[in-house]
Amino acid sequence: MARDYPNRNVLWAETLVDELAAGGLTAVCIAPGSRSTPLTVALDAHDDVETFSHLDERSAAFFALGRGRRTGEPTALVCTSGTAAANFHPAIIEANQARVPLLALTADRPPELRDSGANQTIDQEKLYGSAVRWYRDLPEPEATPRKLRRLRTDAARALTEAMGSDAGPVHLNCPFRKPLEPTPVAGDVPENWHQGDERASVGRGAGADGTPYVRRRQGRPALGVAELRDLADAVAAADTGVILAGPADPTTLADDDWPDAIAELAAATGFPVLADPLSGVRFGEHRDHATVLGGYDGYVHALEFDPELVLRFGASATSKPLRKALADTGARQVLVDPMGEWRDAEFVCSDLVVADPAGTAHGLADAVAGPADPAFADRLADTEARYWEHVAEFLADETPEGAIAHRVLADAPDPATVFVSNSMAVRDADRFGAPRDADLTVLANRGASGIDGVLSTGFGAGSATDDPLVVLTGDLAYYHDMNGLLALARCGVDATVVCVNNDGGGIFHLLPIEEFDPPFTEQFRTPHGLDFAPTGELYDLSFQRVRPAEFADTYRESLAMDGTQVIEVPFDAAASHRARERLADSVAGLL
Amino acid sequence: MARDYPNRNVLWAETLVDELAAGGLTAVCIAPGSRSTPLTVALDAHDDVETFSHLDERSAAFFALGRGRRTGEPTALVCTSGTAAANFHPAIIEANQARVPLLALTADRPPELRDSGANQTIDQEKLYGSAVRWYRDLPEPEATPRKLRRLRTDAARALTEAMGSDAGPVHLNCPFRKPLEPTPVAGDVPENWHQGDERASVGRGAGADGTPYVRRRQGRPALGVAELRDLADAVAAADTGVILAGPADPTTLADDDWPDAIAELAAATGFPVLADPLSGVRFGEHRDHATVLGGYDGYVHALEFDPELVLRFGASATSKPLRKALADTGARQVLVDPMGEWRDAEFVCSDLVVADPAGTAHGLADAVAGPADPAFADRLADTEARYWEHVAEFLADETPEGAIAHRVLADAPDPATVFVSNSMAVRDADRFGAPRDADLTVLANRGASGIDGVLSTGFGAGSATDDPLVVLTGDLAYYHDMNGLLALARCGVDATVVCVNNDGGGIFHLLPIEEFDPPFTEQFRTPHGLDFAPTGELYDLSFQRVRPAEFADTYRESLAMDGTQVIEVPFDAAASHRARERLADSVAGLL
Repeated sequence: MARDYPNRNVLWAETLVDELAAGGLTAVCIAPGSRSTPLTVALDAHDDVETFSHLDERSAAFFALGRGRRTGEPTALVCTSGTAAANFHPAIIEANQARVPLLALTADRPPELRDSGANQTIDQEKLYGSAVRWYRDLPEPEATPRKLRRLRTDAARALTEAMGSDAGPVHLNCPFRKPLEPTPVAGDVPENWHQGDERASVGRGAGADGTPYVRRRQGRPALGVAELRDLADAVAAADTGVILAGPADPTTLADDDWPDAIAELAAATGFPVLADPLSGVRFGEHRDHATVLGGYDGYVHALEFDPELVLRFGASATSKPLRKALADTGARQVLVDPMGEWRDAEFVCSDLVVADPAGTAHGLADAVAGPADPAFADRLADTEARYWEHVAEFLADETPEGAIAHRVLADAPDPATVFVSNSMAVRDADRFGAPRDADLTVLANRGASGIDGVLSTGFGAGSATDDPLVVLTGDLAYYHDMNGLLALARCGVDATVVCVNNDGGGIFHLLPIEEFDPPFTEQFRTPHGLDFAPTGELYDLSFQRVRPAEFADTYRESLAMDGTQVIEVPFDAAASHRARERLADSVAGLL
Repeated sequence: MARDYPNRNVLWAETLVDELAAGGLTAVCIAPGSRSTPLTVALDAHDDVETFSHLDERSAAFFALGRGRRTGEPTALVCTSGTAAANFHPAIIEANQARVPLLALTADRPPELRDSGANQTIDQEKLYGSAVRWYRDLPEPEATPRKLRRLRTDAARALTEAMGSDAGPVHLNCPFRKPLEPTPVAGDVPENWHQGDERASVGRGAGADGTPYVRRRQGRPALGVAELRDLADAVAAADTGVILAGPADPTTLADDDWPDAIAELAAATGFPVLADPLSGVRFGEHRDHATVLGGYDGYVHALEFDPELVLRFGASATSKPLRKALADTGARQVLVDPMGEWRDAEFVCSDLVVADPAGTAHGLADAVAGPADPAFADRLADTEARYWEHVAEFLADETPEGAIAHRVLADAPDPATVFVSNSMAVRDADRFGAPRDADLTVLANRGASGIDGVLSTGFGAGSATDDPLVVLTGDLAYYHDMNGLLALARCGVDATVVCVNNDGGGIFHLLPIEEFDPPFTEQFRTPHGLDFAPTGELYDLSFQRVRPAEFADTYRESLAMDGTQVIEVPFDAAASHRARERLADSVAGLL
């Protein structure tokens, strides 16, 4: 802004925020604190940056993560010095693993107070270790053109590192000396200094608010013609093949062209698409042009699964039976990963393609000679159809936990954002979530697969668009991030939250430890006996507990309502596990 | 235990736990998870290690921190791989800064799965950066005598690094390969292998359960005779002096001799003791033998404070007026710190003594020639007495926030553990907490001074002894760690929780940002409007909201009851701040 500056901190923070906003930053999650005052004041005052105020830094960080996961664009995070910054750590790790753009701005004491026993002063240097794409300890604020140009460049660099094909979290540590408020300090900033004056000193015009000092253009890795031809030859050499679309990076998901690119590749090769619920291609109208399979988690173990070629996109598949089948097949497996991370824990991929997924799909579709014999794809499509018929019959007889995930996805509005928790929720979404034409953006924290921050990530994702939001969670994840419920009122988010409550760690029934009790019940299943109904009163939301058979109606009612409804459905974890086993066993007879 | 082992993970985990228990570990906080199964099973089965099961790893870590803070002995922490471990980070930072013994055991994937895209697999190497005293990535479990001896040595080393004069957190990263359960694996452990066989191979006897393989004896730094004589000369050269007892390290607090050591030094030198509420010497019967001052935070600003010598023990004083007075005095200041950390953010200490605090106090008391002229100490003692009379009159007229802290400490049972939150609670405990003869252990998280994990740290501290427990907190800290309330029922803790609720960040009224609104209300005061009454139902505790004037009676009733009572006292933050200012202003007239 073209005005005099009361002190260097105000100038410094406004310049940083000006460049971040000019570079595309539109939102920030702020946890209140003193040391961060210059950043908070500058962000609050900026018209183009929406602020979300959070009281728990852990939830704040997951909320910001959720926005980045939904949009592929970074949300900033601001906190004061001390352990506040460490509370960001879980979400930053998830952002790193899941390639979610995120920009952590941690306020810090100035250098002379570090390691001095001063209050609320910890070692914040490289606090997040290897989990960030870029770290910088900003210099001490000063009103000199050169330092301010460096600051603008750092802001642009931070956005660059946080975005693109190798998107992820970035950490700027921001030291400030008192006064932290816009209190006038005589001589601190030269008179008649205007923000942007630092541009003039290198001939780029002064005071041009909101125009970036540094313009960034970020390319994406693309294969050359010869490399694409090589891949096309591999396709031509295979009589049968599948395309595996694993959980997609936010950058890919945010690319509207992604589903069409996969559909085009499927049509060109004649390969069916095994579409993870988090791939961005299990749901949507592109399915008209491709064979998209979503039920394989339920039947692949019973199938003779023998493709000659597997083209893999995205992260490791959610489905454990599919991962096992891929490890057992003798197929040549090609992994497309723009970061070259070899996300294949079975070590069966022979070919790594370091290139943009959508670009590679288009390029390869253009390069292949013609589709394979349709027999293989038709056989899988037939199995898929019979699987979903069988699931429908199975769910008509009983309403196990999986029926909830089934209904959540089957009846979700079009469009909608559906955020699913880890542990059983995402597995049930995989096994019971039938492909539909609707524009569903299904998301989960599959980078590190924690059960922390689930509600906040969901609410953050919901805050980023006008799409209706549904969050599907278990009771442990609900408890873990109960603080996140504060964002509903505070950040203006409406959601339908579905909580499958089996009173503890139901997932442990899937593991051999179930056979060892003690310590199974006390240390693993860990029933908590919590009655979550009071969270309705606490956070001013509607809380309903319904029997499984009543869920469908209550869910549809919620979707038609404003405000937030939590729908809790109680289950017996052991019985739910047995139902999953019965379904898996009965599938063999179908094929 | 003398039995065959089903697999190497069982042998490995039982050996680790056997050595830790033999070395003195008595408790562990366990968050349920799969990868940590071998550790959980071994800890659960060990008779000498008490287990506390937590669902939120952040709260678990603060609970363990609280035990270590109360006892000076480490509590272990166990979690699964992934972001779970990052949730320990805030408490580990506090443990580092506050020198609290703590032992984090994080389960991890085996090396071949790291950086492979495998589920729930993150980079856990040096996850806590510079915040731990010692880090080790344990090798892969194996049933060979040499590796098991190394494991026992690592266990002993971990306890050594976590304890003593430079106590703090230690991190052992523990990789395990499946099977994680006690499932038999033929040939994995040689037949007839008994735990302890690894001792026999070096002639230390086999199978001696519960006896340590490695015995540790940890010395403390102590000054030599000449150095003590030097210090005694400095005392002799000063006509006036004070002893400043700042917040004490857990190792010092756990030393029963500490209050007597300080009293002895005070008697020998004739210096009064400025006793921080967290020093371990503001409360207790040693006061009969010394001049112990606790009201200075309220009057030092109005005093002519001109000692010639200041003998400082512990961390930086909680009282900001005192820190300011110390910075302004021309006194020679001697800082005793067993870790040599120079905990003095004003940089006014000229002498650093790297030695055990209690030992140094005793040694110096023996070395000094005789007490100083009592006039200086008498003058301060007189001021102190008049200050507390004034406070009593002030609190008779009105019941501001500070009256709650005053009553909490004045009426706390003898003995009791009183845990106070950061932000206003500890400041009010300082200003309004009058010295008493009772055996009060007053604790706070003053290492990094966060408002996170306050309830859990308090409950952990309470769990470590049979003393009644009182937790004094503000509303933001109550909200931040609401998940910690689960430990009351789950870990068998009874407490009186006093929540001073001023609906947001009342402390910001103390800062200049108060003058700038917006953004003061929206981004700093951040009223949340939460009604905490439903937390009573949620966590099965008694929740009462009382007016300030009713607090004293309700508090005394709670102290006489079993179970946990939360007593919320609503205040207006701005009015409370003005009351503090009025008290400070009125004090000048007294002196």
